[in-house]
Amino acid sequence: MTASLLACGIDPTRSIIFQQSQVSEHAELSWVLGCLTSMPRLRHLPQWKMKTKEKREGSVGLFTYPVLQAADILLYRSTHVPVGEDQLQHLELAQDVARIFNNRFGELFPEPQALLSASCRVKSLRDPTSKMSKSDPQRLATVYLTDSPDDIVLKFRKAVTDFTSEVTFDPEHRPGVSNLVAIHAAVSGQSLEETVHSARGLDTAHYKQVVADAVIQRVAPIQQEIARLQADRGHLESVLSHGAERARQLAAPLLAEVRKHVGFS
Amino acid sequence: MTASLLACGIDPTRSIIFQQSQVSEHAELSWVLGCLTSMPRLRHLPQWKMKTKEKREGSVGLFTYPVLQAADILLYRSTHVPVGEDQLQHLELAQDVARIFNNRFGELFPEPQALLSASCRVKSLRDPTSKMSKSDPQRLATVYLTDSPDDIVLKFRKAVTDFTSEVTFDPEHRPGVSNLVAIHAAVSGQSLEETVHSARGLDTAHYKQVVADAVIQRVAPIQQEIARLQADRGHLESVLSHGAERARQLAAPLLAEVRKHVGFS
Repeated sequence: MTASLLACGIDPTRSIIFQQSQVSEHAELSWVLGCLTSMPRLRHLPQWKMKTKEKREGSVGLFTYPVLQAADILLYRSTHVPVGEDQLQHLELAQDVARIFNNRFGELFPEPQALLSASCRVKSLRDPTSKMSKSDPQRLATVYLTDSPDDIVLKFRKAVTDFTSEVTFDPEHRPGVSNLVAIHAAVSGQSLEETVHSARGLDTAHYKQVVADAVIQRVAPIQQEIARLQADRGHLESVLSHGAERARQLAAPLLAEVRKHVGFS
Repeated sequence: MTASLLACGIDPTRSIIFQQSQVSEHAELSWVLGCLTSMPRLRHLPQWKMKTKEKREGSVGLFTYPVLQAADILLYRSTHVPVGEDQLQHLELAQDVARIFNNRFGELFPEPQALLSASCRVKSLRDPTSKMSKSDPQRLATVYLTDSPDDIVLKFRKAVTDFTSEVTFDPEHRPGVSNLVAIHAAVSGQSLEETVHSARGLDTAHYKQVVADAVIQRVAPIQQEIARLQADRGHLESVLSHGAERARQLAAPLLAEVRKHVGFS
């Protein structure tokens, strides 16, 4: 988690990092918000539909998870939430539930707004029409922040592209190579145009090596930081326990307000 | 709530009476148990099916309410739970979830057993084929512990029976008068046979008055106690706040065990 926060540019000395399960107010607010959420509202969320199509239907916990997410957001009266495109509909649920609560019990929650990142959605290296995902069972589909340089090279070498060797950005007709360009642009900080321009004259086989190198270079300092932190378990535990303490200081008075609004106390 | 506890023979000086919303561990355990509950398990519960048939589909809170009930039971490692017949399937859910938890994370919860009351299920006075319910919109269907003697007489006088004037106990063919006999037996402490015998020679019109009188006599001391308690708000608040304190002392270590078993800490 720390690794992905660092990757998002979140500074743990300024941000509050904690384990949700250590702050009971998340579950409590989630219960209240569930009472304001209709069944079809959850049933029609695309992530739920996708997950229940894949295998046998998920648990009640998976079904109500977007309500817990709404509680995670609203418990701190958040105004802006950094999300990926695939989480936009879950954020809209949080907005709706905030509005329903405010209308029924009196103004308490701001309606949180999305902070979409500028980067395109990163696609799977094995199937460039679906997103790259930590839970993808295909080992070569996903690059982890903790992958070794050899693994990163291997994964890009095996990345699915097409039979044209030129490097262009055309997500609709050439999703595979376009995904490589998008990743390259994101890790190098260049625009898509600059990135395509810099690849002029390379065939896709060579370009895969260039992208792999750029990714290795980008994750190297993150991997060093991960290693440094993992060697200092005491520090990590103190970050989490201080974080939980600070989170509780914010969550407890808000939940007291919720109780008062709802009529529990 | 105190009234219904008294009616159940629960002694508030020995029992712990508290507001669930004051003990955060209920919501927290409920979240964990929801992750162990399948969607069809809740969808097929008769109370949910009945409630969603009546009007538009209920909220997520209503749907997951049986999981919260399971948490209410398991949080105190309860071994026996006094329930009405209509709650048996919800208790079975608590048993199943306890078993699933124990199997997956190691033995922690006893499987709670039902304590069914000896009385038959009390039926509506307006429709003796459905149960008497606090949420019935027909005012005359339900006798409240707080009803005045005049109201009780009126409700029994208007009770739906049939065109036979004799008093017999035959729930299948004569649900209306049999419900009166069952209520009479329950409030007088007599068996069904003794009750029918005592009504020999009465027609149903007179019998309704007899049953109303018996109910009035049974609820009179309960109503006095309700009045005494309602006049002493300070006492009630101290019962609830001491109760919440004692409940938390039991719930907190159990939830710490749950966290350890599940791997949250």
